[in-house]
Amino acid sequence: MAIAYNPHLIPSETTNVPKPIMTTSSPLSQDELKKIAAYKAVEFVESGMVVGLGTGSTAKHAVDRIGELLQQGVLTNIVGIPTSLKTQEHACACNIPLSDIETHPVIDLAIDGADEVDPDMNLVKGRGGALLREKMIEIASKQFVVIVDESKVVEYIGRSGLAMPVEIVPFCWKFTLGKLELLFEEAGCVGKLRTYDENGEIFVTDNKNYTIDLYFKKSIGDLRIASDAILRIPGVVDHGLFIDMATTVIVAGEQGVTVKNKS
Amino acid sequence: MAIAYNPHLIPSETTNVPKPIMTTSSPLSQDELKKIAAYKAVEFVESGMVVGLGTGSTAKHAVDRIGELLQQGVLTNIVGIPTSLKTQEHACACNIPLSDIETHPVIDLAIDGADEVDPDMNLVKGRGGALLREKMIEIASKQFVVIVDESKVVEYIGRSGLAMPVEIVPFCWKFTLGKLELLFEEAGCVGKLRTYDENGEIFVTDNKNYTIDLYFKKSIGDLRIASDAILRIPGVVDHGLFIDMATTVIVAGEQGVTVKNKS
Repeated sequence: MAIAYNPHLIPSETTNVPKPIMTTSSPLSQDELKKIAAYKAVEFVESGMVVGLGTGSTAKHAVDRIGELLQQGVLTNIVGIPTSLKTQEHACACNIPLSDIETHPVIDLAIDGADEVDPDMNLVKGRGGALLREKMIEIASKQFVVIVDESKVVEYIGRSGLAMPVEIVPFCWKFTLGKLELLFEEAGCVGKLRTYDENGEIFVTDNKNYTIDLYFKKSIGDLRIASDAILRIPGVVDHGLFIDMATTVIVAGEQGVTVKNKS
Repeated sequence: MAIAYNPHLIPSETTNVPKPIMTTSSPLSQDELKKIAAYKAVEFVESGMVVGLGTGSTAKHAVDRIGELLQQGVLTNIVGIPTSLKTQEHACACNIPLSDIETHPVIDLAIDGADEVDPDMNLVKGRGGALLREKMIEIASKQFVVIVDESKVVEYIGRSGLAMPVEIVPFCWKFTLGKLELLFEEAGCVGKLRTYDENGEIFVTDNKNYTIDLYFKKSIGDLRIASDAILRIPGVVDHGLFIDMATTVIVAGEQGVTVKNKS
């Protein structure tokens, strides 16, 4: 079910919402679109909920907004479950009470961004470097609301040409990289070890693992088959394919906000 | 193809081979049976081979034997690929030249013990704590020779009542433990975090992960389905099911040695 949503209709009492003016001379920036999607998602949050807090630039706006509504007393009794150390720090700074999935194994709602969203609401996540904790928390959520700007909507997973990340153990990572490239040889797969910067310092996840970014020239086909094949490679911890997990996708674009629910 | 092998026929020039005497008054110890199986496996090793070196009390005998044959000049130009830091140290002490799977991505032969072997040559491994590196190396081996004493032969995986280990990331391990128990609820599964001793210090793998030991009251059914289901749980790194990997299983028992090759 797709509902066209007009950002102009965001109630005026929701402070700090960017107020888009639809003229050709002032298009909304990508960050403004992210903020619109994030604020829309936070409308799903109700007092008393346990809320999974995503990682990345879009999810950060949702965390800010939840903190703001708690401060205003519009929301009360929220427990946040952060998906990364970074989000944990930011949510702390926003005075959101925090816990973890051991204490709260059932999460009412999670809100997070995504790097790609396909027409079946399958996702690529993890370019922000937190895919494993995100997946652990979002798979435990009754509702998982994904927030993106329209640039993230793709015809098929991998279409953007950007990375599909795989978290692996550091031991013999080149060997695992080779296995991943071989697995997706027909899709023209190239894998790269993620580094912090051009100096080549290896990016280390919150779980002390490495990340291989996979780039595809063609579709990798059936995502469930691809997912199982990746997970069967010894040395792989998890990957950025989030299949059949999102219950709602909110897309903010120049023409408004679209809310798509799982049918 | 099963070949009955009589340990009495081990050539006399193979030094240090235990010489079993088949009387009811002096049955062979479990360690002597392990040694017989290990020595038989080393007969598969040829000069010039890249050899995967397993971990555990049975594999240790194979490492000793390879070191001995190198020293005697019976074997030459062997490169060992150790499956754990412990085996690496031991193989070093045995003067076996060592490398890794990045330098030698194709291994000619791997020799390792197992905790359970079923009639289809599927294995449980990892009670020694090195399942991930073992799997990475043994999956890359052209031949994988498994060496066990007869106590490890079971009707079905899990039948021994001993642990089936799963390597997991430390983050929220209790949550992952709960997911594993739920997955195998029908098999009466109980999971326990592995500790070094009764004081409760958590056992940490070579990859800085934790191990959950799963105990089953009944068969877990189709092993391939079980394997994929375990790997799909976020937080799981790998598990001790080694399905369709062994090419030869050598079983040492009171009645002799049996060599079973993959049909």
